[in-house]
Amino acid sequence: MRIDVNADLAEGFGRWELGDDAALLDVVTSANVACGFHAGDPNTLRDACTRAARGGVALGAQVAYRDLAGFGRRFIDIAPEDLTNDVIYQIGALAGFARVAGTEITYVKPHGALYHAVGGHSDQAAAVVEAIRCYDSRLAVLGSPGSRWLELAGQAGLPVYREAFADRAYNPDGTLVSRRAPGALLHDPERIAQRCSRLARGEEIEAVDGSMIRVRAESICVHGDTPDAVAIAHAVRGRLETEGIELVSFAPAPV
Amino acid sequence: MRIDVNADLAEGFGRWELGDDAALLDVVTSANVACGFHAGDPNTLRDACTRAARGGVALGAQVAYRDLAGFGRRFIDIAPEDLTNDVIYQIGALAGFARVAGTEITYVKPHGALYHAVGGHSDQAAAVVEAIRCYDSRLAVLGSPGSRWLELAGQAGLPVYREAFADRAYNPDGTLVSRRAPGALLHDPERIAQRCSRLARGEEIEAVDGSMIRVRAESICVHGDTPDAVAIAHAVRGRLETEGIELVSFAPAPV
Amino acid sequence: MRIDVNADLAEGFGRWELGDDAALLDVVTSANVACGFHAGDPNTLRDACTRAARGGVALGAQVAYRDLAGFGRRFIDIAPEDLTNDVIYQIGALAGFARVAGTEITYVKPHGALYHAVGGHSDQAAAVVEAIRCYDSRLAVLGSPGSRWLELAGQAGLPVYREAFADRAYNPDGTLVSRRAPGALLHDPERIAQRCSRLARGEEIEAVDGSMIRVRAESICVHGDTPDAVAIAHAVRGRLETEGIELVSFAPAPV
Amino acid sequence: MRIDVNADLAEGFGRWELGDDAALLDVVTSANVACGFHAGDPNTLRDACTRAARGGVALGAQVAYRDLAGFGRRFIDIAPEDLTNDVIYQIGALAGFARVAGTEITYVKPHGALYHAVGGHSDQAAAVVEAIRCYDSRLAVLGSPGSRWLELAGQAGLPVYREAFADRAYNPDGTLVSRRAPGALLHDPERIAQRCSRLARGEEIEAVDGSMIRVRAESICVHGDTPDAVAIAHAVRGRLETEGIELVSFAPAPV
Repeated sequence: MRIDVNADLAEGFGRWELGDDAALLDVVTSANVACGFHAGDPNTLRDACTRAARGGVALGAQVAYRDLAGFGRRFIDIAPEDLTNDVIYQIGALAGFARVAGTEITYVKPHGALYHAVGGHSDQAAAVVEAIRCYDSRLAVLGSPGSRWLELAGQAGLPVYREAFADRAYNPDGTLVSRRAPGALLHDPERIAQRCSRLARGEEIEAVDGSMIRVRAESICVHGDTPDAVAIAHAVRGRLETEGIELVSFAPAPV
Repeated sequence: MRIDVNADLAEGFGRWELGDDAALLDVVTSANVACGFHAGDPNTLRDACTRAARGGVALGAQVAYRDLAGFGRRFIDIAPEDLTNDVIYQIGALAGFARVAGTEITYVKPHGALYHAVGGHSDQAAAVVEAIRCYDSRLAVLGSPGSRWLELAGQAGLPVYREAFADRAYNPDGTLVSRRAPGALLHDPERIAQRCSRLARGEEIEAVDGSMIRVRAESICVHGDTPDAVAIAHAVRGRLETEGIELVSFAPAPV
Repeated sequence: MRIDVNADLAEGFGRWELGDDAALLDVVTSANVACGFHAGDPNTLRDACTRAARGGVALGAQVAYRDLAGFGRRFIDIAPEDLTNDVIYQIGALAGFARVAGTEITYVKPHGALYHAVGGHSDQAAAVVEAIRCYDSRLAVLGSPGSRWLELAGQAGLPVYREAFADRAYNPDGTLVSRRAPGALLHDPERIAQRCSRLARGEEIEAVDGSMIRVRAESICVHGDTPDAVAIAHAVRGRLETEGIELVSFAPAPV
Repeated sequence: MRIDVNADLAEGFGRWELGDDAALLDVVTSANVACGFHAGDPNTLRDACTRAARGGVALGAQVAYRDLAGFGRRFIDIAPEDLTNDVIYQIGALAGFARVAGTEITYVKPHGALYHAVGGHSDQAAAVVEAIRCYDSRLAVLGSPGSRWLELAGQAGLPVYREAFADRAYNPDGTLVSRRAPGALLHDPERIAQRCSRLARGEEIEAVDGSMIRVRAESICVHGDTPDAVAIAHAVRGRLETEGIELVSFAPAPV
């Protein structure tokens, strides 16, 4: 039995720090590295790539809308061809640091509002898929089960992987409970760790209404932007290891 | 006998256009493509790379300070390690579009105030050299004869090429006459073309004071941001071809 | 009989120029000056304010989404409270240059995608109204007849003015023909000038289907980003003057 | 006996927070509010202005180079006329939020590399002075004793105030010990508070070499970007109050 654990890295910018990249890199097997459009100055990108390469953590491009002021969290009605090129730009920039670190990026995961948009917005989903297809069709894509983005990526022949969220509640239909709804976020590290263990085993987990659902995922997303989040991430990893579940990236760097 | 002709491309940004990339690509053998820090949105970068690849024009990264408002023309006292990473970021981003266009970038030329800075500012020159060395030490560098930048690049083992400016007057010591001084810019296409022919042949050219000097260069830089500039570029190319001088990039893309 | 003529100004950025501000200021009675978020560097803003003040042209803040790369033409799903503060920031910045030029801004007109959004998006329309109400409730607002933005501004007690577009075709219901539809743009200066004369007189104009409609407006918007556009603007002004229609801003600066 | 205490505020940007504005506003009598060029998104600016107005804290514009990536800490060789307009833009933007908060900005203090530059760079110092003179010559300026900036501001008729730094060591000649030199920063809250008490009384303080020097200042600058800094700021205020020194801004808002 095996599972991947992924988290967002390099989300500071210049003087501003965010999250604890060093701590997260002890936990995850895949690092979604910001590419400078929503966060991530070049120093931070290089540092994240260097540390990830050293720790054997897979590198993914966390591509986003060009929106530093909004941290990529606001939908932008960008033309698909513009989005395609924005994504190529970001992948290329990060790939440069991966190369300098002696490794390669192996997957792409959209960030924030773009992640949400490609779940259902066919034009934008297709635009991101097109960017990857043009750049390197061996790159994998990471996203939510059932998203338009994964569907189109699969049709384009890209390797497709699904993720579940460690600390988010699920609706009975397998979608995430909106962040604004009560009970959307889980807080208890032990409960979260147990839930991740079930996810990794392919067992059912409890939805927000108490019903049991099955979420199929090759990766679990953890967060690291608060001390609590880092503690949760450690609890998840500890539990998985204790139970003998192998932690390995779905898209390891070529050796 | 052979010479390269280079020019800056992709210097618009979004709604704002600058220069006539299509016209220049009919003239040059090497295209210095902006990378987004002083100019150049992703659409424009992709378009320049695609056209250059189609026309067999070599692609170089025209790296710059992060300064859209100042078009990269203002010296920034950036820390060397920050500059190194800013340059890696830009090279990587452009390399992504070169890859999508089925080719590779083969050289680096700093832009504007950074071009001027690396002429004499050892720390910044070393920082740019370090970026290239880390990224790909097969990349060539293009700069002014006698610049600190070419000296350090040569010491680091990078392939080094020198350029002369088609439309700029020279001091008797081989340096450029300051843009603010009278007579700094040449305007007559025929005289400029003739001068370029002499440069390509390794013959002496006339300095601003009438004395004759020898400027050794493997490339001639032309401009394209005004209709006059494009006319000059065409005159230069026409003259060189008429005289049987081979126009070929100093750093052609690998086939 | 009187009418205002407005146009967008200061839409370059740094090295990049756009439109012919000097030519437009000979034509218009109200200048919608960009505020730096979609276009307009501080030098350009100051120059526009200085020239407008000298020519007795009213100054309006052309507020926009923060999106230089997209020229403010892409809808951004920004939170209303963030939009309110983005608008206050822009109004304040422009007001500084108006003050330095010895005058004041007297109205606000949203730009591009924000102009379109506030036509029907109640939350964003209310957010812009709130910004103006907080900053100075004597500021007028300029927009399309029937837009949500003018409705909410009127409810908030702001002075409300409507504009018609000189070179755009209208649907029979008084809305604009989409830019992507055939016949959306008028090109003949004489026909456009005649149409503006009818608009100024409150007479019916021809809709795209040949039917006659009445568009009530206190201002006519002309463009200046192409040589043709400037010629059209001149034709409009010439015709209105010839016919004895007084050209005067709906919101002149206080004396 | 009276003294002002000033600190930098509003230095986050969007998702990124920096410093504890609420805590600082309990301590200072003057708030140097970032204006968006090195830090400070519109939400943060408004919040700082609203809180400062509520607490009776004077508002100053902390103007900077346009450099979010470098937090305004890198010298930029900007043309003086461009700098003048960049400063007017920033003052205007902040003044908008002061107005919305029912108050006014009353002074200007450059930030980071610009603060350092105007200490000795006559052209840039004159450019900032010119911006203030054009905008409102009643605005005061705050800076280091002996700086070129204060000298030129005084010559231009602007009200001039000097500041000392609570936690920085001084050379025997009254200049600051470079941050890179050993002993540049003081850490002991009690010792710092005592030193501030002496500064406020116009008494001599100990320089880094043990000699006694007199630093004349109408304001003391404290920091708030670390928990320690906030503790120091509180210690300084507590000590000054205990000793009966009146804490009052050098440039209170008009009532």
